Amino acid sequence: MSSFSELMAFQRRTEALNQTSQRLAWDQETVMPRGATAQRAEEMEAMEAVLHARRTDPRMGDWIEKASLENLTEVESANLRLLKRKFSRNSKIPADLAEALARETSLGQGIWAEARSREDFAGFAPTLEKVIQLRREEGEAMAQGEDGMGNAYDALVQDYETGATAESLGAMFDAMRPRLVALLDKVKGSSHQPKKLNGTFTPDDQMKFAHVLAERFGYDFNYGRIDKAVHPFSLGSGQEARITTRTVENDPFNCFYSTIHEVGHACYELGIDDQHLLTPLGRGISMGVHESQSRIYENQIGRSRAFTSWMYGAVREMFGDIGVENAEEFYATVNRVNDGYIRTEADELQYNLHVLLRFDLEQKLISGELAVADLPDAWNERFEADFGFAVTKPSQGCMQDVHWSVGLFGYFPTYSLGTVYSGNLNKAMRADLPDLDASLEKGDTSPATGWLRENLHQYGGLRDPRETITHACGFEPSEAPLMDYLEDKFSDIYKL
Amino acid sequence: MSSFSELMAFQRRTEALNQTSQRLAWDQETVMPRGATAQRAEEMEAMEAVLHARRTDPRMGDWIEKASLENLTEVESANLRLLKRKFSRNSKIPADLAEALARETSLGQGIWAEARSREDFAGFAPTLEKVIQLRREEGEAMAQGEDGMGNAYDALVQDYETGATAESLGAMFDAMRPRLVALLDKVKGSSHQPKKLNGTFTPDDQMKFAHVLAERFGYDFNYGRIDKAVHPFSLGSGQEARITTRTVENDPFNCFYSTIHEVGHACYELGIDDQHLLTPLGRGISMGVHESQSRIYENQIGRSRAFTSWMYGAVREMFGDIGVENAEEFYATVNRVNDGYIRTEADELQYNLHVLLRFDLEQKLISGELAVADLPDAWNERFEADFGFAVTKPSQGCMQDVHWSVGLFGYFPTYSLGTVYSGNLNKAMRADLPDLDASLEKGDTSPATGWLRENLHQYGGLRDPRETITHACGFEPSEAPLMDYLEDKFSDIYKL
Repeated sequence: MSSFSELMAFQRRTEALNQTSQRLAWDQETVMPRGATAQRAEEMEAMEAVLHARRTDPRMGDWIEKASLENLTEVESANLRLLKRKFSRNSKIPADLAEALARETSLGQGIWAEARSREDFAGFAPTLEKVIQLRREEGEAMAQGEDGMGNAYDALVQDYETGATAESLGAMFDAMRPRLVALLDKVKGSSHQPKKLNGTFTPDDQMKFAHVLAERFGYDFNYGRIDKAVHPFSLGSGQEARITTRTVENDPFNCFYSTIHEVGHACYELGIDDQHLLTPLGRGISMGVHESQSRIYENQIGRSRAFTSWMYGAVREMFGDIGVENAEEFYATVNRVNDGYIRTEADELQYNLHVLLRFDLEQKLISGELAVADLPDAWNERFEADFGFAVTKPSQGCMQDVHWSVGLFGYFPTYSLGTVYSGNLNKAMRADLPDLDASLEKGDTSPATGWLRENLHQYGGLRDPRETITHACGFEPSEAPLMDYLEDKFSDIYKL
Repeated sequence: MSSFSELMAFQRRTEALNQTSQRLAWDQETVMPRGATAQRAEEMEAMEAVLHARRTDPRMGDWIEKASLENLTEVESANLRLLKRKFSRNSKIPADLAEALARETSLGQGIWAEARSREDFAGFAPTLEKVIQLRREEGEAMAQGEDGMGNAYDALVQDYETGATAESLGAMFDAMRPRLVALLDKVKGSSHQPKKLNGTFTPDDQMKFAHVLAERFGYDFNYGRIDKAVHPFSLGSGQEARITTRTVENDPFNCFYSTIHEVGHACYELGIDDQHLLTPLGRGISMGVHESQSRIYENQIGRSRAFTSWMYGAVREMFGDIGVENAEEFYATVNRVNDGYIRTEADELQYNLHVLLRFDLEQKLISGELAVADLPDAWNERFEADFGFAVTKPSQGCMQDVHWSVGLFGYFPTYSLGTVYSGNLNKAMRADLPDLDASLEKGDTSPATGWLRENLHQYGGLRDPRETITHACGFEPSEAPLMDYLEDKFSDIYKL
């Protein structure tokens, strides 16, 4: 048996256990009885200990070293590359730091939720300081060595997006921000403002329509399911990728577009070639590429004029009068730009401004340039500058997202990177499929979802993130296609 | 740190992983998308490998040996006794056999369900043969050594009922069978035959009533939930014990009494003293004792004249006209003895005849005396002899139960043993609670469920199975109280 085969057999079992652990997380968010919280924490900790021991098993290092000398196919080399990278990363973290991080970030979420409900930033600050300090240490440890990134923040980014750096992301975002702010100003000043929805949308009917939408986007219920959760998510790889959504009584778009978004994530996982099942290549390559799939499903396809013209009829059929008169009005309503504080509820245009704000602040938090005590002021100032109105309480501002409380630094920029990637993919896809709108108008997304499966999904982790996008598009990605698309779309809707 | 403490800390994590594995099994039976079957089998196998490695970890042997010399409390000694027994058993099973069993039994269930739906015994036979072969090997391995049972079947029985043997069980069942057959003959010949139900029972309403019943029996939804499954079961211990039930359009009693039965199992687990959480004592001591709890909930309480008089009113309120005129008629209808093929739908009287049939056949399957190919004929012959009418298709006969497809050999006899135990517990409980019926008539089961919690549930695995029953009853159990109870009850209802 070759070292590569031994390595892969060991890794396959680790991945099967990882899938089990993910299923447990799904269970906790959807069906677990509330009284089981303490026992479940112990179960999750036990699974994590098993996984950590396997991921840092010294035999992995031996197998990786020996396998590097073996004669490997392209797919095998790609698997080895991913395993080597992860193993090298994990081996740089001292055990006591890993344990402290696991402990503090598992406590962090509860403390954040509690403090947020009391609008108590001061009560959250010591926890946030501890988490930042530990992640900074971790980043510094990972930044060392030949494959290190040289600085802590960039090293943290690698957990989510291999190859991306604060510099490369910053350059892209700096090019976007003036265009976004200028477009938002014009949109807000327009005399053409879309109507709001006005109808009756029961939770049951919303869930029924969520199933209709998921099917329209090619989600195969033989390999997935939809449940409700407080915060929508998608979990699982290989033969099983489940999604969750939520219902808000007067805001059915929250349910519909959360569903389409999560279906985008799930279809990426389910679309990976079967040969990669439970191997390192058998999962989406990065958070940014993942987000490109959820975003293109949600926005460039799901919020297009063509698809919403079909959706208008389907929505009217299920919900009756909804306060808009025709498909064109519905298209504008779907894409309405609202004043709002919350990232997860933002429209296509403002969403990236939310992310850019977090990207700039979290770099300073990790470098130490911004003290935790000064975070609320820094947040509120930047928010008012970008969005034109003031934050009045922490839950509208720097306490709205769970991410930092659980140590997710370096993760936010992948949201906008994925959105940029979706703009590039949309450009390439439209060039390849000149008649796409005719299908979308009939509610048939299969040419688009088929194009994504063919050009991107099937490969899984074969290529690094940026190369994955380049391969699918046939050109190097940049922010330009997204910005052009946004300016065209919103100029049209708002008659600028 | 004492060896006992080290042992218990290690074991606690193993038990947390075991609960995780059980949750995965629940998931598979209730919410898993069908396309995930193959991957799930791999996940279950990976979990089983982790659990097996921990259960047979050589350190366990050292700790157990050293802990035996330490000064232990009664509870600690009981924990050590259970661990020692399990460790000795597990150490006898080669890892590759354990993994093969996990894999085949995980696949077996799907193959059984699929073949059963096509009435295709031939399609199921190769799988059954494989499972029998593996379990036989396992039994033979376990039968060796000082604490072995000498033969494969008895060794398998120990997995479910410590101390029971084919001989001791056979003696008890032999004493029951003539009395059961004689009573059944008289009941069938009686000119007084209870009415059948006649009403409309939608699946949704049945599930609503299942929730009402579960609450009446003290099931705490803060630590559990009810879902639908093909074959009702209860899973989980400690802070979480979930149940499943099923609905059959014209047979609401199937749903109602499956629910009460599974609630009996779950309440046993949830009633164990908190100090035993995730320790060996923190689970029901055996399948037989477990079944005594589900049976006494279902039969001696749930099918009593007193409780059904309350239930009649509640059923009428939810379902309207049901074709019976009063509580007394309803009591007879609930306890109606029907010709039927299916064990899980059988009345109190015939149920044990179903079990005795399986007990006799499965001993021969494990010993090899009965070939799988001959199973349908052997089943059908015995069935006609005991029940007086013929099986016409496999789903009515040897393919009706999931058990053998997942390797549960030696398990069936615990159903009748538990039923015998429930007869003993009922006798003791009634002696302690002379006014119980007055509460049951109001739909209040709390004196009975409280008596069971106080005298049995709370102790978990503190005493071995038979001692657990003896301790609760204050006398040694035998088949006599059950047989007396059945003869009294059915003579009364059928006016014999």
